[in-house]
Amino acid sequence: MAGNSIGQHFRVTTFGESHGEALGCIIDGCPAGLELDIEAIQLDLDRRRPGSSRFTTQRREADEVKILSGVFEGKTTGTSIGMLIENTDQRSQDYSKIKDLFRPGHADYSYHQKYGLRDYRGGGRSSARETAMRVAAGAVAKQFLKSEFNCEVRGYLSQLGPICAEQIDLDAVESNPFFFPDVAKLDALEEYMRDLKKQGDSIGAKVSVVANNVPLGLGEPVFDRLDADIAHALMGINAVKGVEVGDGFAVVNQKGSEHRDLMRPDGFQSNRAGGVLGGISSGQDIIAHMALKPTSSITIPGDSIDQFGQPAEVITKGRHDPCVGIRAVPIAEAMVAIVLMDHFLRQRGQNGVVTTQTPVLR
Amino acid sequence: MAGNSIGQHFRVTTFGESHGEALGCIIDGCPAGLELDIEAIQLDLDRRRPGSSRFTTQRREADEVKILSGVFEGKTTGTSIGMLIENTDQRSQDYSKIKDLFRPGHADYSYHQKYGLRDYRGGGRSSARETAMRVAAGAVAKQFLKSEFNCEVRGYLSQLGPICAEQIDLDAVESNPFFFPDVAKLDALEEYMRDLKKQGDSIGAKVSVVANNVPLGLGEPVFDRLDADIAHALMGINAVKGVEVGDGFAVVNQKGSEHRDLMRPDGFQSNRAGGVLGGISSGQDIIAHMALKPTSSITIPGDSIDQFGQPAEVITKGRHDPCVGIRAVPIAEAMVAIVLMDHFLRQRGQNGVVTTQTPVLR
Amino acid sequence: MAGNSIGQHFRVTTFGESHGEALGCIIDGCPAGLELDIEAIQLDLDRRRPGSSRFTTQRREADEVKILSGVFEGKTTGTSIGMLIENTDQRSQDYSKIKDLFRPGHADYSYHQKYGLRDYRGGGRSSARETAMRVAAGAVAKQFLKSEFNCEVRGYLSQLGPICAEQIDLDAVESNPFFFPDVAKLDALEEYMRDLKKQGDSIGAKVSVVANNVPLGLGEPVFDRLDADIAHALMGINAVKGVEVGDGFAVVNQKGSEHRDLMRPDGFQSNRAGGVLGGISSGQDIIAHMALKPTSSITIPGDSIDQFGQPAEVITKGRHDPCVGIRAVPIAEAMVAIVLMDHFLRQRGQNGVVTTQTPVLR
Amino acid sequence: MAGNSIGQHFRVTTFGESHGEALGCIIDGCPAGLELDIEAIQLDLDRRRPGSSRFTTQRREADEVKILSGVFEGKTTGTSIGMLIENTDQRSQDYSKIKDLFRPGHADYSYHQKYGLRDYRGGGRSSARETAMRVAAGAVAKQFLKSEFNCEVRGYLSQLGPICAEQIDLDAVESNPFFFPDVAKLDALEEYMRDLKKQGDSIGAKVSVVANNVPLGLGEPVFDRLDADIAHALMGINAVKGVEVGDGFAVVNQKGSEHRDLMRPDGFQSNRAGGVLGGISSGQDIIAHMALKPTSSITIPGDSIDQFGQPAEVITKGRHDPCVGIRAVPIAEAMVAIVLMDHFLRQRGQNGVVTTQTPVLR
Repeated sequence: MAGNSIGQHFRVTTFGESHGEALGCIIDGCPAGLELDIEAIQLDLDRRRPGSSRFTTQRREADEVKILSGVFEGKTTGTSIGMLIENTDQRSQDYSKIKDLFRPGHADYSYHQKYGLRDYRGGGRSSARETAMRVAAGAVAKQFLKSEFNCEVRGYLSQLGPICAEQIDLDAVESNPFFFPDVAKLDALEEYMRDLKKQGDSIGAKVSVVANNVPLGLGEPVFDRLDADIAHALMGINAVKGVEVGDGFAVVNQKGSEHRDLMRPDGFQSNRAGGVLGGISSGQDIIAHMALKPTSSITIPGDSIDQFGQPAEVITKGRHDPCVGIRAVPIAEAMVAIVLMDHFLRQRGQNGVVTTQTPVLR
Repeated sequence: MAGNSIGQHFRVTTFGESHGEALGCIIDGCPAGLELDIEAIQLDLDRRRPGSSRFTTQRREADEVKILSGVFEGKTTGTSIGMLIENTDQRSQDYSKIKDLFRPGHADYSYHQKYGLRDYRGGGRSSARETAMRVAAGAVAKQFLKSEFNCEVRGYLSQLGPICAEQIDLDAVESNPFFFPDVAKLDALEEYMRDLKKQGDSIGAKVSVVANNVPLGLGEPVFDRLDADIAHALMGINAVKGVEVGDGFAVVNQKGSEHRDLMRPDGFQSNRAGGVLGGISSGQDIIAHMALKPTSSITIPGDSIDQFGQPAEVITKGRHDPCVGIRAVPIAEAMVAIVLMDHFLRQRGQNGVVTTQTPVLR
Repeated sequence: MAGNSIGQHFRVTTFGESHGEALGCIIDGCPAGLELDIEAIQLDLDRRRPGSSRFTTQRREADEVKILSGVFEGKTTGTSIGMLIENTDQRSQDYSKIKDLFRPGHADYSYHQKYGLRDYRGGGRSSARETAMRVAAGAVAKQFLKSEFNCEVRGYLSQLGPICAEQIDLDAVESNPFFFPDVAKLDALEEYMRDLKKQGDSIGAKVSVVANNVPLGLGEPVFDRLDADIAHALMGINAVKGVEVGDGFAVVNQKGSEHRDLMRPDGFQSNRAGGVLGGISSGQDIIAHMALKPTSSITIPGDSIDQFGQPAEVITKGRHDPCVGIRAVPIAEAMVAIVLMDHFLRQRGQNGVVTTQTPVLR
Repeated sequence: MAGNSIGQHFRVTTFGESHGEALGCIIDGCPAGLELDIEAIQLDLDRRRPGSSRFTTQRREADEVKILSGVFEGKTTGTSIGMLIENTDQRSQDYSKIKDLFRPGHADYSYHQKYGLRDYRGGGRSSARETAMRVAAGAVAKQFLKSEFNCEVRGYLSQLGPICAEQIDLDAVESNPFFFPDVAKLDALEEYMRDLKKQGDSIGAKVSVVANNVPLGLGEPVFDRLDADIAHALMGINAVKGVEVGDGFAVVNQKGSEHRDLMRPDGFQSNRAGGVLGGISSGQDIIAHMALKPTSSITIPGDSIDQFGQPAEVITKGRHDPCVGIRAVPIAEAMVAIVLMDHFLRQRGQNGVVTTQTPVLR
């Protein structure tokens, strides 16, 4: 099956290259009757949009989304929703020098091997620009989950290089350009990023997502588990190299008596599982994390080869984020929302009725 | 879509409960003409089989696989392959006590919420026993990859609780019941496990998989990336809470100048990416890791509730592995093999010709 | 995607060759809580079973179905249902003569070209024997539809060669071995078949299916219409060459004023559409027809070639139905039931609530 | 799964309403390196376009297609291809009167029952206008098939009401606005249509498609047969009520000795099967037919009801085709091309090499 779609029941298919005419997506399977708040979609796009901070790429795109179908008199009709964002600030000349080069750490080499040719302008389809449409589609899923279950999917930057968030204040996340939940460390973050820019280098990051009021019973044994589909969705984001649910890799050195979340009549006593038991949502908060590599688009020279196998030195100038993890926060939210939405429709199909946990058992 | 299948082109669908009559699977999409070595399938099943070590569950199952279709005169015919393993050592009486209980850390609670009823005998469908069929199907994929590309998928236990493998000697893996690649630490492992058994507790683990001679160009942008599908496949294994490709979570604190794998005319200079660039195989070895939680089936009492919301204390006797990670090694290999096979067929459909990297560039 | 599955939400995957060890299937996506009547499944298998009439093949198979998983204490659990039928009356020696031959009108030639090899015993996977598992799976769907909506899917033989049913008495269908709804013509049918046997020839047939109390709103625009999926399911039955919904090919010479089904407050005034408007069920009876070619397994010699391109004369002895359409009746019912079930689960996922038409509007 | 996609490997997903802003589609899975002739795509769109004949709807749409992605320097890149057609001649006022009405024979009623609301302007998503994107996508598939195998998919109107084509001259098809292959009957056709217009009525039609140089071995047993997928694709076209492959319903009264296509060393002696044996292409021409009902949009009044169950009389003025079958010819070609392309990629994935029949055996 072709690979530009995600979801089975709430199915998102995207198209678009970094320097093509437009990006677009089709959402297939959005239930009819949802009052769609287009401004809220735009707001999420603005959160991801480049140029909104001096620590992200200086490319300036309006990223204005148009809804072309599937909505009538303000409500979804149940038919496929076409969405479009025109590219307005492509500067293809930036990339002509690297036309024949394989930038190390980029998809240039693997695309070339796979397809025999590639749209080299700005990474073409492998550019993170493509994720704009995921954010738009995810915003639709978020609205549905919010309106049906008051379920909210919220992300934040939990670590940037050596700087970890220790206090997780979700309300602080939107108040700073880093989506960082620990305001005490904002100065340290700014300083770190300033130094990094001077070095012309980049840094990795960890992004976390929490969803509350999650419907019960989402996820299908045995392959399409909720956590497996979240892993698929998050690992499918550009630059992601690791995914965790709940305690993640910390479980390697946990004992069973320590890890298991005990239950009492008033509910679960902890949430090490991250809201998933046996691949199925337990009604607790879904908690997931992902690790993003530092972008390879840096001004420090690096050895590489060209299409003819000749050695070459690569310096990537262009306009690039020194930490792609920052802008990945709304993308991660979008992907988790799409997965939850997809599994909600699945489960409603199987079961007819889907509920969230009573607060006492949450 | 129903959730008991994995893969699109090489598609594996399984059925079976821990204490039902049989486990089975259908492989759909295996190319015709593969000389199938049924003993090699059985060998992988034996590697996963319980009862083969005193550190794994004492349940004794022959796990003898029968091929019911799709093979004629020793070769695959291209039609669907039915495989069956009969359950022979179910002891359902072991489980009658926990019929109404939700064992903490198990799928009991989430299955009950999802389905309204459940086969409580030995975890039913949520039992790791189901993974036997994955191993059988993965063994077919392994044979295909081996015969076409000399591509081998090999796993090992890279960490058990606090004990990390420091030397990775793949040849040592099959010589010990832990699938551990660092023989110098085998005594420490044995001692650790003995202590754990005395405590009636369990421990987490990390399992790693390496595939060599991987065909170039596997993986589809943008959602069905090779790494995303590996993440889906590994996170879909019972007890897995985290997945990494290449350097995984270590990238969070790496700089771009440090992380990117430089290329020279003689090939890549490192493999931090784990063989995947932009979601597409680069011809380098695929490297993936997964974290497995400690089983919650322990003899240390834990608080829980029953189906009526009443408090209950749970002690799980039965016959359980103190470290489910050990037997997960062949399962992880199987899952990675299935994903590679699936993407190979996809890529061959798209491109006609698929090759591996020349050794010099590997 | 591999081709041995049908349905997305109620997904049936089958395996098995005519002369292999067993046939089997997995039903994935059957909702939990259905009280499964295994005798009713067996009854449908018996309706399809060879050897039940002197006008169908004399191969004698018990066709006894075993349920291996997914059912606990008489109810479906929501997990995948494995079903198995062992082959007991294979006589492979019957087929040795045609090992290298391509029987005209059979799949021998196309399988050989597709796969390069084939299981030639009794047609292998291309044998109609495979449809036994469809009947078993369809019987599960029928039970669900009956219990949820009192929806029944009933088929009959509407034409055999020149003999058309003029009176459609559904209650008469089960009382004769032809599934023929017009008892006045049974003698003519018997005589026709007797003559045909003497000639060693075979004849085509038309089979019709009617489903009543069909849930409203089934079918998805624009490709996965209910009628398109019924067409796919029926054309996928061995020997079928044509499919109609409602008036079918008769519409070619109908005018718009004649064809459209008028509506009045008491309901539709006719059902030329066959229960589908715009690809979506209207609550009227679903009516579909299919044309089955005469089997090519006849004793009249026919020109053919062998695998080496040499001319050959083919006479098919074996044990074959002179009219494969007769036994196709339960298969057609099964396929329609599977499609309705699949679309019901889809629609319930999208909409939450699915109902049938009020009788007054039906 | 959501229903606006067709194909697994060559996957087409569409969006757009009759009177929305635009129609669009995404082609996912088109192999890289195809030199795309955009004028040829436009040509097929022009063939389907309304307003090109006085016997089709007078709505005037430029139907100008834009390629937004997936093509670079004139060649496909292997990434998803976004295509867009803006709507320019919507006259929504035409439809305000029927806002609350269910036009008999239309999808109004079933959409309303399915979704609870609908975009009533011009039929919204149920309008045949949606098929423009199928034609655009099919044109890409046609170019691929042509360039790889010299395989051409050509359609024609084989019957319009009582007027049957007796001579099938494919070269004449493009020379008349009816796509009619029998020029001797063009006058009769014109006269028939003139009378029909005077009556304010509409008429059904039969459309046929022939594909030559078809790759061998396309189609998967047992459900995703090539003929089953063609049936799905054609029955999924608006107004289609019947589909045939090869001799279709004529087989009901054929004998086995008459129906089977004999083979001799110089090839098949006839093509009653329509190029498909056992669901797999035999290398002969693929031949399929479909029956299209007369449109219900006529000016002759008809009984109906409104959304409140009250009786109403419906007269459809608007701008409508008196025979929707005529413009369905390029749509049918497109759908068959998409199915062939999809199965070609599948088969190449399975087998690596796919060829067409040698002419001598064709």
